[in-house]
Amino acid sequence: MTALARYLPIFDWARGYNSVALTNDLVAAMIVTIMLIPQSLAYATLAGLPPEIGLYASIAPIIAYAMFGTSRSLAVGPVAVISLMTLTAASNVAPPGSPQFIAAALILALLSGLMLISMGVLRLGFLANLLSHPVVSGFITASGIIIATSQLKSIFGIKASGEAMPELVQTLAMNMGQLNFPTLVIGVTVTAFLFWVRKGLKPLLVRLGLGLRTADLVAKAGPIAAVAASTIAVITLDLEVQGVKIVGAIPQSLPPLTMPLFDARLWQSLAIPALLLSIIGFVESVSVAQTLAAKKRQRIHPDQELIGLGAANVAASFTGGYPVTGGFARSVVNFDAGAETPAAGAFTAVGILIAALFLTPLLYALPIATLAATIVVAVLSLVDFKTPRDVFRYSKPDFAAMFATITVTLLAGVEPGVIAGVGMSLALFLWRASRPHAAIVGRIPETEHFRNVKRHKVFTDPRILTIRIDESLTYLNARWLEEFVLEEVAEHHQLKHLILMCSAVNAIDASALESIEAINHRMADAGVQLHLSEVKGPVMDALERSHLLHHLTGNVWLSQNEAFDAVIALADRDEGAGQTPDMWMARGLI
Amino acid sequence: MTALARYLPIFDWARGYNSVALTNDLVAAMIVTIMLIPQSLAYATLAGLPPEIGLYASIAPIIAYAMFGTSRSLAVGPVAVISLMTLTAASNVAPPGSPQFIAAALILALLSGLMLISMGVLRLGFLANLLSHPVVSGFITASGIIIATSQLKSIFGIKASGEAMPELVQTLAMNMGQLNFPTLVIGVTVTAFLFWVRKGLKPLLVRLGLGLRTADLVAKAGPIAAVAASTIAVITLDLEVQGVKIVGAIPQSLPPLTMPLFDARLWQSLAIPALLLSIIGFVESVSVAQTLAAKKRQRIHPDQELIGLGAANVAASFTGGYPVTGGFARSVVNFDAGAETPAAGAFTAVGILIAALFLTPLLYALPIATLAATIVVAVLSLVDFKTPRDVFRYSKPDFAAMFATITVTLLAGVEPGVIAGVGMSLALFLWRASRPHAAIVGRIPETEHFRNVKRHKVFTDPRILTIRIDESLTYLNARWLEEFVLEEVAEHHQLKHLILMCSAVNAIDASALESIEAINHRMADAGVQLHLSEVKGPVMDALERSHLLHHLTGNVWLSQNEAFDAVIALADRDEGAGQTPDMWMARGLI
Repeated sequence: MTALARYLPIFDWARGYNSVALTNDLVAAMIVTIMLIPQSLAYATLAGLPPEIGLYASIAPIIAYAMFGTSRSLAVGPVAVISLMTLTAASNVAPPGSPQFIAAALILALLSGLMLISMGVLRLGFLANLLSHPVVSGFITASGIIIATSQLKSIFGIKASGEAMPELVQTLAMNMGQLNFPTLVIGVTVTAFLFWVRKGLKPLLVRLGLGLRTADLVAKAGPIAAVAASTIAVITLDLEVQGVKIVGAIPQSLPPLTMPLFDARLWQSLAIPALLLSIIGFVESVSVAQTLAAKKRQRIHPDQELIGLGAANVAASFTGGYPVTGGFARSVVNFDAGAETPAAGAFTAVGILIAALFLTPLLYALPIATLAATIVVAVLSLVDFKTPRDVFRYSKPDFAAMFATITVTLLAGVEPGVIAGVGMSLALFLWRASRPHAAIVGRIPETEHFRNVKRHKVFTDPRILTIRIDESLTYLNARWLEEFVLEEVAEHHQLKHLILMCSAVNAIDASALESIEAINHRMADAGVQLHLSEVKGPVMDALERSHLLHHLTGNVWLSQNEAFDAVIALADRDEGAGQTPDMWMARGLI
Repeated sequence: MTALARYLPIFDWARGYNSVALTNDLVAAMIVTIMLIPQSLAYATLAGLPPEIGLYASIAPIIAYAMFGTSRSLAVGPVAVISLMTLTAASNVAPPGSPQFIAAALILALLSGLMLISMGVLRLGFLANLLSHPVVSGFITASGIIIATSQLKSIFGIKASGEAMPELVQTLAMNMGQLNFPTLVIGVTVTAFLFWVRKGLKPLLVRLGLGLRTADLVAKAGPIAAVAASTIAVITLDLEVQGVKIVGAIPQSLPPLTMPLFDARLWQSLAIPALLLSIIGFVESVSVAQTLAAKKRQRIHPDQELIGLGAANVAASFTGGYPVTGGFARSVVNFDAGAETPAAGAFTAVGILIAALFLTPLLYALPIATLAATIVVAVLSLVDFKTPRDVFRYSKPDFAAMFATITVTLLAGVEPGVIAGVGMSLALFLWRASRPHAAIVGRIPETEHFRNVKRHKVFTDPRILTIRIDESLTYLNARWLEEFVLEEVAEHHQLKHLILMCSAVNAIDASALESIEAINHRMADAGVQLHLSEVKGPVMDALERSHLLHHLTGNVWLSQNEAFDAVIALADRDEGAGQTPDMWMARGLI
């Protein structure tokens, strides 16, 4: 791979492009386009934006990603969770739907794009690791519940507001009196239909003799059927005058060239939301891309993915869009439909461009309730109560972080939710890292093995204490080491030799080194010699660059067995005691 | 130890108190009192407070610590770094010396006390681990430089302000014209004298025939001699009229009963500084206490120490003091002078109480320059350029954190400095934790040992890949694991079996479990079976509570050797290939 192909992966795949790939890509693009049109409109309304912005966000970003991204199947565009986060962030600076709100969405896309690109260039992708799987899973479940609840207003034809459950539920309940019956009928019918399409249609088509893959693709066109049917119902039954809200006039145009507003105060207040949105979007996108790449034994490069997604968001900000990322549903459809290269994405962009230019008049009478139903059915598949149960059974600390994320997201909104999850995971990780496992060990009689005195019948000597440390020594556990050693030493009154057995210590940082030096000095004051045993090669190399080995009151021993024998001999010599076979036997040596 | 003695350690030592301990404690108290009087006055002026507040802060806090603390030798009271942090924090809400400033210092002591007690009760002492040794060392060096520089103004008799180097140096340079010559003479003479007392007096006294310990104690009285001499000089030469600033009238009184102001806004703006100050004070104090306790094979309890230091600060806030902690110099003097129990501290408190009641008129003509010289000589011993060199040689990441702490502290002040150090250490730790070591291993011919293919001549099979993971698997490295495995698998085109060798994996959290499940699914899609080998007992127990073992396409093997043989046999069977001795030989088995 040349340097150019590394930063512009398009040069990697475009060279081998041929007519077979072209055909496959074109077919996939057509299928994805049909699916994307209603979804794009729906997610834009979820974000509090005019529906056409969803179409614009599905054109230029796809092309930008095709040039810079590394996944061959990922389809970028508006997605549910990022739309909710956009709504939350932009609502803090302007009322939804206002020109300032739309401007804030453009700024969010630009900031998010610049942040992603910077993280890619600076190789900071590892920051996404701060989001643990349980936190992401909990966050998506809670977001799904909030989104589904927020869409009930459109299905009931009433007003409601809020970005977290308490306000949403309260405003929904308060306004239930304004319920619009025709809207409710459309909303409930479409929701039921879409659920049936998802669960029941495919098996039915298979029973009717269709191939599994064809049946799957036909089922994927379900939303388009719902869009067509409900639009026709509105027109023929003249439901608009009965209070059914419709999409209305959508401008027929190319995506507009937009220039995100440069306003320092606005940028500052959108910076944290943009960062959270970028990282959540990146984590989601990468996990989809990795899943699909693995199926064909392809690879994706996470740092380059940051650049690809960043480019997509920058493109969105200059073409009237809003924040985008790689979507799960559309990427899987793209993959299943046989997309071979990112060119499929480019063709999808052309398809949506055609829709934006010519098909929008057909969407005039599309009921908002249909879009809401599309969203509800899509996001309820994100809501997952099985994972929390599994996590609870597997790991209580992980469950605690997940529970905090779900609870805070539902009660206080998406941004506090992400922050609570990250904070809780990190605190639990640091807490665990600060108290690693260590054991007092003794020799298993007649062997060279040393085991925990609490679990095995082992030989020990009251003048000698061996502590096995089961973790790398870092600043997080350096003080624990000092305390643990001092506590054990204080309890062994005849102690003359302390051995730290380092077989599981992969690294010793400067803080831990200082703690070992402090232990060495304190032991010297108390008349105890400090020894080290089984120090690994790289750790020993580092220790040789320090002063520890010069000051060490005892020795460094290659093996614990050697250390134990030698130290017993030392202790005996110091006591002037003779050595008899009986004593050796008592020590488990023969 | 009873529950009462656990929370009120005074019940632990008071029971065995006798006349020998009483005599030793009284002698130690007298020596410490003499040393503490000038130091307390000096540190209070460093903190921008009237000098008598330094005396008040050395009375009630000592008694509170004696009741609740666990160290038998620690002497609490004003210290240099905490005084600087108090100055910085209180300056943000009021000008130094004003009544509001003094009120802010009381609030800082109360907040710090309450925070320390809460951390002790909630067992949050591990939070202090976030301050690595290099960061603390760098912070103290930088603080020492700032303090020494800030005291130059009193030695030159000019005005200067600022809590970081740029402003300090600039204001010093600008006001150099106002230099007061008599002040300069006193300042420089006392500084030189005190340095000589520290370095040259003790050897001289020993040569003159004094015992080592007596010489040491006489040298410790040096500051009192400087105080007396410079006070007499001011009185006899009438230097006050020549512009030498003096301490002036100090009220002769018991420590006043004070009630920290309750003002929500003020508390809020002092909360972060109080937290930083608490943690820095705690870290310093505990390391002094541990060093002294180890010398007598005593123990201190860090969580109880939090409560002891917290009680001392609460006591300071109600008796006209300011934030205190366990000081290095005074604790060592206390220990060397033979203090046996915390009663020595209580007697010291009585000594200072007598000074506050009766001796303050003697201090009327004490020059501020003498106090400044005391501070300069005390803090220059904190400045340490050797440790940065050692840390640089030992560990570059640790040095980076230290360098950031020193630079930011000097240029921007103490609070940004601590935050930069903690942030940098944590970021580097997380970065390292997110990319652990792993190796592709193969069998060393004719053995059961498996080693890194890059370092040893080992046997491998193109259909089998064994990855040894040298770290616990957590959410921080779960994504790394997925990427690493996919990358290696993508490079091995004939691969049929992947073995993860888990001999060094002490734990697998929920994120890592999900990553292993994802790897399992992706490998299945690519026609590769996933196996685990050498899974430790506790890890296996956890895995049995998950679904992984049901879905695993391969097996879990006790030993890597067993896994490798069995998997070769599986691959051969699948290929329908016969097994000849030649093939076995080629695999290093015979």
